[in-house]
Amino acid sequence: MSTNLAPKPAGSAGSEQRRRILEAAIGCFASAGFHGTSMHEICSAAQMSPGALYRYFPSKEAIIEAIAESEREQNAAYFQRLEVETGVLANFLDVGIAYLRDMVGSPMCALCAEVRAEAQRNPRVRAMFERNHQDVRSRFRAMLERARTQGEIARDVDLDVVVTLLLAMGDGLLSRMPFDPEMAPDRIEAGLKELVLRMLAPRVG
Amino acid sequence: MSTNLAPKPAGSAGSEQRRRILEAAIGCFASAGFHGTSMHEICSAAQMSPGALYRYFPSKEAIIEAIAESEREQNAAYFQRLEVETGVLANFLDVGIAYLRDMVGSPMCALCAEVRAEAQRNPRVRAMFERNHQDVRSRFRAMLERARTQGEIARDVDLDVVVTLLLAMGDGLLSRMPFDPEMAPDRIEAGLKELVLRMLAPRVG
Repeated sequence: MSTNLAPKPAGSAGSEQRRRILEAAIGCFASAGFHGTSMHEICSAAQMSPGALYRYFPSKEAIIEAIAESEREQNAAYFQRLEVETGVLANFLDVGIAYLRDMVGSPMCALCAEVRAEAQRNPRVRAMFERNHQDVRSRFRAMLERARTQGEIARDVDLDVVVTLLLAMGDGLLSRMPFDPEMAPDRIEAGLKELVLRMLAPRVG
Repeated sequence: MSTNLAPKPAGSAGSEQRRRILEAAIGCFASAGFHGTSMHEICSAAQMSPGALYRYFPSKEAIIEAIAESEREQNAAYFQRLEVETGVLANFLDVGIAYLRDMVGSPMCALCAEVRAEAQRNPRVRAMFERNHQDVRSRFRAMLERARTQGEIARDVDLDVVVTLLLAMGDGLLSRMPFDPEMAPDRIEAGLKELVLRMLAPRVG
């Protein structure tokens, strides 16, 4: 995960410190929640003095924003893998399963529910969450349009609703995977690919 | 919402008091989170003295359990509507959309993200969440088997994966609806029904 976000403090030592803080914070938030975690606990987990931590992040909210920004950077790497011109839908499904596999058991996955809950009451977190959501929506939309141009998707399906369902599916899988082995990527991979293709592919004949 | 759960204290006055407490608690939890809500705040919201509240619920956790139980009762009413012998899948989609409409803007919907986050760190909440999840899974599985018996679902699709995708979709829609008007039930109803039928229906010819 790259967290090379802000220019201050400059230099690789600074970004290494930032990375250490963010990793510590993600672990704390995932296990105790935003409200259950103090700046002091983040200092301990990052093995850093409060003075050093506050140099990088003046508040828990600033840390949350940096985590959201880092998630956007991570997402960008997956989006890049969607940029193919043929076999668009099959490639998307491969990337989607790879994403789910990367997320299984990661603290970022545990953090998703936390971010969702917090977005409901904290306008700054809500704004970050909505920006990421709309970003994913427009990338998926563009991918589906390319797939349709390639004849991989039936002309008469509503692509906006398809994006909605794909986003909802991904979100639901991420949030329930930790509770249900039936939802593990290995278990669902073949069936999910087949079902999404059935849903979208043009009918032959 | 019926919250007529425990026999103690008996009588309709008792259950009316319980209902008042649970409604107040749902509102508090949805807007401030489990950890951001104190028993004192629940007392204020329910306009009740601490002594009265503790007679019904000894702890916040006992309140959370009663809310989960009440959600199970609510779910039971939807499950009953799935018990049809023909047009099983179309009926399921109607009930599903009705459920999403009932949930839009309800504090129970806001509470979902909260429960998910809490389930990750609180074993009692996790156990409740998993029990509800498995209950929904087995009801959906039985519904899909009836639909297949009626010839509404292709023989070769993996029903366990279908249940997983339906659960994930429902969950993702519930959790993102508050943030994205494209996900509103009215907006997606027609497209969602068509896409799910495309995904599951036997191919003709």
